[in-house]
Order: sequence, then C-alpha cells, then structure tokens
Amino acid sequence: MVLVGATGAVGTEVLRILEQRDFPVDELVPVASPRSVGRKLRFRGGDLEVVGLQQKVFEGADLAVFDVSEELSLEWAPVAAESGAVVIDKSAAFRMDIDVPLVVPEINADQVRNPPKGIIATPNCTTTAMVMPVAALHRKWTVNRLVLATYQAASGSGQPGVEELWEQTQLAVKEPDAVREGRAGDVIKGGDTFVHPIALNVIPKCGSVKDDGYTSEELKLCHETRKIMGLPDLKVTATCVRVPVVTGHGVAVHAEFDSAVSLEHARALLAEAPGIELADDVGAHDYPTPLRATTQDACYVGRIRRDLFDDRALEFFSVSDNLRIGAALNAVQIAELLI
Amino acid sequence: MVLVGATGAVGTEVLRILEQRDFPVDELVPVASPRSVGRKLRFRGGDLEVVGLQQKVFEGADLAVFDVSEELSLEWAPVAAESGAVVIDKSAAFRMDIDVPLVVPEINADQVRNPPKGIIATPNCTTTAMVMPVAALHRKWTVNRLVLATYQAASGSGQPGVEELWEQTQLAVKEPDAVREGRAGDVIKGGDTFVHPIALNVIPKCGSVKDDGYTSEELKLCHETRKIMGLPDLKVTATCVRVPVVTGHGVAVHAEFDSAVSLEHARALLAEAPGIELADDVGAHDYPTPLRATTQDACYVGRIRRDLFDDRALEFFSVSDNLRIGAALNAVQIAELLI
Repeated sequence: MVLVGATGAVGTEVLRILEQRDFPVDELVPVASPRSVGRKLRFRGGDLEVVGLQQKVFEGADLAVFDVSEELSLEWAPVAAESGAVVIDKSAAFRMDIDVPLVVPEINADQVRNPPKGIIATPNCTTTAMVMPVAALHRKWTVNRLVLATYQAASGSGQPGVEELWEQTQLAVKEPDAVREGRAGDVIKGGDTFVHPIALNVIPKCGSVKDDGYTSEELKLCHETRKIMGLPDLKVTATCVRVPVVTGHGVAVHAEFDSAVSLEHARALLAEAPGIELADDVGAHDYPTPLRATTQDACYVGRIRRDLFDDRALEFFSVSDNLRIGAALNAVQIAELLI
Repeated sequence: MVLVGATGAVGTEVLRILEQRDFPVDELVPVASPRSVGRKLRFRGGDLEVVGLQQKVFEGADLAVFDVSEELSLEWAPVAAESGAVVIDKSAAFRMDIDVPLVVPEINADQVRNPPKGIIATPNCTTTAMVMPVAALHRKWTVNRLVLATYQAASGSGQPGVEELWEQTQLAVKEPDAVREGRAGDVIKGGDTFVHPIALNVIPKCGSVKDDGYTSEELKLCHETRKIMGLPDLKVTATCVRVPVVTGHGVAVHAEFDSAVSLEHARALLAEAPGIELADDVGAHDYPTPLRATTQDACYVGRIRRDLFDDRALEFFSVSDNLRIGAALNAVQIAELLI
C-alpha cells in the first residue's frame, strides 16, 4: 500500500487505524511533500522512511490511499491507477465523476468492485457524519428532503485551522474582562484561514464561495449525499457554520420522508445500524458532542424527535470525528473491502 | 420607573440603554435581591441606591421593567400592575398568557396599548434574533414553515454560564497537546450549568427537557414565534445548540413561503426593515458573527440564499446580541412606546 500525504492530519490517522485494526499490509510506502522526505514514521514498532511523490512508488502496489490537495489527486491518482493500484482518494477531485464510485462502506460497499477508472472516492467529512443515519432511516421510509445546519470543527480546515483557533484562544484568556463582556473581538483578530476570529465566535462560511451564494461545503453536502444514496432528485439544503471546536463535526438534521415515521422505530433502526452509536436520552444528559465523538469510530446520533407538526419528518443531531469517520477510517474500511 | 433585577446582566444593560437613548425617566428605582440592597448603581452621573423587592416600591410608578426568574415575575408582576404600573416582563412567566401581549416593537408595536392584565411580555432572546427577519419576509410572501438550528451563547444561561465557559477556556489553554489533538475533554470537565464541557465543544441541549424530547428553548421558539406573528398554525421546528461563545445568538433559518420568492427582493425587504442590518456579501467575508453583533442594536442577517430545489424557500443566518436586542433593548423600546 502507498499512502500519499502520510504526514498530514488524516494520513497520521490512517497509520494509527491500520495498526489498530491490524490491517494486513505487506509493504507500506509513506509518501509526502519534499520537505518531509527522509522523515521516519513509526509503524508497528518499526520505522518507515517517507519518500517523495513519483511514478515509481506505485509500481507493484495494489492499493494507494491519497490524502492530498485536489490538484495533486487530479494529477497523481490516475498515475497510481495506471500502475495497477486501486486508488482510494480523500479529496474532492473525483467525487462527482460518474466513473468514480463515492463510497461510505456502511451504505454502498457494493460499489467498490471494479471501479472504471481504478479510483474510489470518499466523501467530505461532514457528509459522512450525516448521511449514515439518514441512509438507515431512508431504507424504511424513503427520504425526500433534508434541511441541514452544521457545526464544523477547525480541523476540517487542516492544521492551520487548528493553530488559528489555538492561538486566538490563548490570546483571549489574557483578557478576562473583554472576554466576559463578549468583547473578545476587540483583542483577537482573524487569521489567514478563517479571516474573522474563530475563538469564542462562530463563522457561517465553510469552504469557498460558489454559485447562488452557496459555499463549496454546502454544495458538497447536497451533491455527495445524492450520489452516495443513489437519489439524484433528493432535495438537500444546508447552512455550513464553523465553530470553535478542534475536532468533531456536528449536524442538525431535519429529514422529511414519503411516509409517516415512528420515533420508536427510528431509534431502533439507528441503534442497529452499523457505524452508528445512539446517544439519545436528553433527560439524562446523553446526546452527541464533539468532545465525546473525538477519537471514536462511531457516528453519534441523538436528540431524535418527530417534527411537532409533520408526522413524516424527523429531527436529530449527529456528530462524528471528522479526521476518523469522515476520512481515515472510511478510507481504511474501503481498503478492507478490497483485500 | 422601577427596574426589578437591576444588578443582573440584562438589568445592567437596561440602565446603559436608558442612558444611551436618553430615555425620559423622572425617577428610577433599582430593585434587586437582599444581598444587593444598599449597593450604588451609576446612572446619568449620579448614584442610585438598590432597594429590596416589596409592594411599596411600585407605588406611584408608571412603568416597571422585570428581569428576574419566572417564579419572581409570577408573584410580583401582578403586584406592580395592581399598583398602577405597566409591567414589561422579560421572563417566560406570561409569554403564552392570552391576556398578555408578547411584543417585538418592530413587528407588533400596536399591541402595547391597554394590556388586559397591565403586563406586556418580551420574547426569548433567540426568538427575537430570528423572528425580525422572518416577519419582514412574511409580509410579502406569507411564511408557512420554519426549520431552525441555533448557535446560542453562554450568556443566554446568565453569568454562571459565562463563568463556566471562561474557567474551562482558561484550563484548556494550559494543555496545548490535549487541545490541539481534540482531547480537551480529557482535561476539562463539565460544570453545573452545562453539565458537559462547553469550552471547545457544542452542546445540543438548551433549557430544560419537555415533552416529546424537545427542550424548553425549542418549544419557546415555536410557540413565541406563532404568537408574535399572529400565525397560530405556523409549522416551526428547531434544534437548539449551545456554542462556546460569550454573547450573540445565531440562528440558521430555513423558511418556506406560500409563493415563489426572489432573492433580490428578499435582500431589499431585509435591508429596509427596521432593526435589521444586512451583512450579506459572503465573497467579501461579510456575514453575521456573534463577535460582530455584540453590543450592537441590530439583528444582523446574511448568507441569504434561495433553496436550490424549492423556489418558495429561503435560507439565511441571523445573529443578534442576546443581552440587548433579545432583552434589554426590546424592553426599553416597549417602554418608549408607552410614554
């Protein structure tokens, strides 16, 4: 297996998960940018030496996991596939390509066999956090509309996002009066990643600006969900918001179905769905939070309610670790399906 | 004027706003709990001495503003009204009473005249942040459904909520590795107000647990919106979430109308609506955030979009200072209508 982007946040997590799940890998080749070449990465008690990205690293490899920029994936995933490796790509580069399956193993594992281009894409981490419970409910009642609002962690913007949140938080605690009076904006300024302050603030913009005032993250939630679920006409609308959390994406989901839903039945379906952990007893303070979901392999679902005025609609809140569920774990699970 | 709860967060803000707006008050009597009696509050260059809550403080007063617990309002607002004062009550005690108008001056100012019980209620601060833009759009297209997700500040739970967020944030910055790795939950524990950690976390529960798995805040958003807008059959559903922000409640709003909407027309309606400030140029990083809205007297509205698959639905994000717009300012505006 070749791991391209081995030193990044998700790459590091992939290595950890391969160890934890005892994935049968004969040879693992970590690839990263020139400045990391030669660096040693610990793996199963030994050291792996990071190599640079070039065609020959893919020779003889059966699998290549890519966690790099869209641009690098566009250029190098076909090279790896040409060399005979099945590529599992974490970027958005191929997600909407009709010849590339977009896979969440709990939902559409059947699509991993014989991908036409030798490439399998994995969805955006926010999509994964929400589509797993939606798919479990859809099998019973047929979903026709989703209205989503997200609570996305800083690490969704990579390590620079985490550092921005961290530095601003450090600054803020030096100014108790300003913070307590809600005037943290007077003492902390925005950085390169989020532009406005992210500490003690929320920013209703994730990703880049696209058509009609929507952001790239909002459109991904829509288009990726339709593709994964095989529902090209599903109505999906979303408002994506960054919150001052390090890891763990949350989504408030309003889902409308073709037929009347039962709350008890919905709970039962979610309780037995693979990859989902129910946290749904609000009276006992049991509900999903980012700190609870971090480092866990489950998509936590709770606050399940039936719409007060529509017996065909459900509300719930789901949270999952965006570096694992929505990224590294999903990629490793696909690799497990292929071996 | 008698100000009951003069030393609390909202009471302090009321004093500040009365000064800023040069409200014509002959005598202002600040009332607070026994432990604050005798304390001096600065007002217009002089000192006001805090007195205790007793029937005689209301004698001769034309107005009484209450910002105390539901229990105290239930007991004392009728006493003040009996003494001849018109009561403006910030608590939830009388909001759903059919003989008590629930007033947002920008929407239903006409209801302040001759309240049957001598009491006027003001809505929950989260309701106010959202209902002002919804009402402006409703006048044109008639709203029939709202799907809401909130981003509520710690100060919505009063000063103890702010202190909990503050103390946990201070603890977190002492543990850089834990925080950066998303493991802040290992080093900070929940407190009395939010139970789970609120720093670097989000908590999908605001208020107390009511029927059908909904929380008090979620039901207030529904019932108060219906009453303020005079739409008893409006479908409203909400997921209320606490975020690590000191002041400024945000709401992601999905609003469905009886007829097709125009994005340009929606922007124009919101731009000219009283009390609303448009912040709606996402490409120029112009959108509402809590730090921006804090200490401001406007409800900020941005990220306005038409639903991609429903020409009768709009999405937007609104934020307002929960201590001012949703509380102190609203109360003072009602007082201005009465003099």
